[in-house]
Amino acid sequence: MRTPRFEVVALPGMPMVNAGDDLADLLLTAIADNGYSLRDGDVVAVAQKIVSKVEGRLLPLAGVTPSNAAIELAAKTDKDPRMVQLVLDESTEVVRHRPGVLIVRHNLGFVAANAGIDQSNIEHGADSEENALLLPLDPDASAAALRAELMERCGCTVSVLITDSHNRPWRLGTVGTAIGSAGMTVLDDHRGGEDLYGRELKVTLINRADALAGAATLVMGETTEAIPAALIRDMATEDSKDTSAMINRPVAEDLFR
Amino acid sequence: MRTPRFEVVALPGMPMVNAGDDLADLLLTAIADNGYSLRDGDVVAVAQKIVSKVEGRLLPLAGVTPSNAAIELAAKTDKDPRMVQLVLDESTEVVRHRPGVLIVRHNLGFVAANAGIDQSNIEHGADSEENALLLPLDPDASAAALRAELMERCGCTVSVLITDSHNRPWRLGTVGTAIGSAGMTVLDDHRGGEDLYGRELKVTLINRADALAGAATLVMGETTEAIPAALIRDMATEDSKDTSAMINRPVAEDLFR
Repeated sequence: MRTPRFEVVALPGMPMVNAGDDLADLLLTAIADNGYSLRDGDVVAVAQKIVSKVEGRLLPLAGVTPSNAAIELAAKTDKDPRMVQLVLDESTEVVRHRPGVLIVRHNLGFVAANAGIDQSNIEHGADSEENALLLPLDPDASAAALRAELMERCGCTVSVLITDSHNRPWRLGTVGTAIGSAGMTVLDDHRGGEDLYGRELKVTLINRADALAGAATLVMGETTEAIPAALIRDMATEDSKDTSAMINRPVAEDLFR
Repeated sequence: MRTPRFEVVALPGMPMVNAGDDLADLLLTAIADNGYSLRDGDVVAVAQKIVSKVEGRLLPLAGVTPSNAAIELAAKTDKDPRMVQLVLDESTEVVRHRPGVLIVRHNLGFVAANAGIDQSNIEHGADSEENALLLPLDPDASAAALRAELMERCGCTVSVLITDSHNRPWRLGTVGTAIGSAGMTVLDDHRGGEDLYGRELKVTLINRADALAGAATLVMGETTEAIPAALIRDMATEDSKDTSAMINRPVAEDLFR
C-alpha cells in the first residue's frame, strides 16, 4: 500500500474577482502560473468569498430596511440593524446572542456566527457605503458546477471544496470548514467495522471535508494574503456523490440549541 | 515570498506501544523507515493513544468502584458505571447527557465526549476484562518532553502535536483536534490588522494547531490502519511558546454550557 500522504499548495496570484467572472478559468490560470496542472484526484479548494463574489452575492447595506425584530436584536448585539436583517433573512433560527455575538442556524443548515455574512476583504463604496457579502445560495451546487467546468477543461477527475472560516463554541481561533463540495468523500464511514483488537468501532465517521478545508485554509491565509484558493494533491478521492450538506447534524440531534 | 505549501505524511510501521516505551526512539525509527529524517520546521504529529499508552494511562475497569452519582448517570446514558466514574474523575462538569451521550468539560479544560476516554484499539484482558485508556495527564507537558527528546537526537528545531478525534455539536463526523503541543504557533493572531481594503480585521485569530491536527489525522486513519503518527513538513514553525491549553475558550465566554 502506498504510504498515505498529501500536499496542500496555495495558489497565489489570482486577481480580485467580480460578479460574473469565469472562476474555472481564473483557477486554471492560477494553477498553471504556480507551475501545476490538474490531474486525477486533485482537490481544488476555493474560499467562499470568491465564489460568492462571482455569484453576485455582494449587497449594499443601504438597500436593506431592517424590521423591528432586526432593530431590537441589533440593539442587543451591538450590530448594524441592516446587517442583522440580512442575518435573519439568511437563517432559520437564532441559536445564541450576546453583545457582539449573533450565532444562527443558516438556511443551509449549519450553525454560524452572523450567518457567514462577511464585511472584510470586500469592496466598500467610495461614499463610505457599507457592503455585505452573503454566502453562495447553494454552495454544493456551486461546487458541482465549478467541478464540471474544471473537469471539462482539464480532462481529468477532480473534486471541488468551498471553504469558510468558522468559530467554535469551546475552542478559540477559527478553522477552515467545508460549506460546499463536489466529487469528494465528505464523511468517511467506518461504522460497523472492527478495531485492531476485533472490538466494534464506535465513533468512526470521519469528516474528511472539514479536515481538508482546515488544511487548505492554513495556506490561503485569512487576512491580507489574498490567496483565495489552494490545491490539495494526492488525497485520493473516489468520485463520490457526497455533498457538504451531509455534514449538518439533524436538528433533532442538536443538544446545543 | 515562497508559495505557502505543506505536506502531510503518514508514518506507518510503528509497533504497538507499551507503557514505558521510548516514544522518541519509536518515532525516529518510523521516520527513518519511511525514508525521511527530521529537519528544521517539521511538525511531528502523534495520536493521543500512543502517548497515553506509553505514559501508562491504560486502566482495568475492574479496579474502578462507581459512586452512586456514576451509577445514576450511567443509567441515564446507557453506559458502564465504571466508565462513567472515570469520566467524572477526569472532568469538571457534565455539559450534556442523553442515552448514549456523555459530554463533559475535561480537567484539561476542553469539552469532549466521555472525557476523551477510549475503549477502542486498546488491549483487553484475556479474561474479557475491559480496559480504558485515559488521556495523558498533561498533554502539553508530554509534547514538550517529546519535543526535547526529538530535538536532542535530531539536532534540529521541530514541533510536536498530540492529536485526538473529536465530535462537534452541529457537524457530523470526527475531526482531528490538538490536545497538546510544543514548539508550534497554536493561535495565529492577526487581530488589530487591516484587510486588503484597509478595513479592520475582526475575526482573525486562526487556530493553526487544530487545522494541522485535522490534516494529520486524515493520513493516520482512525480505524484499523494503525498509523499513530504523521510528519507535517514545510508548515513553518516559529519556535513558539504556545501550548494547546491556550485553545480552551474561557468558561465565562462559553455560551453553550
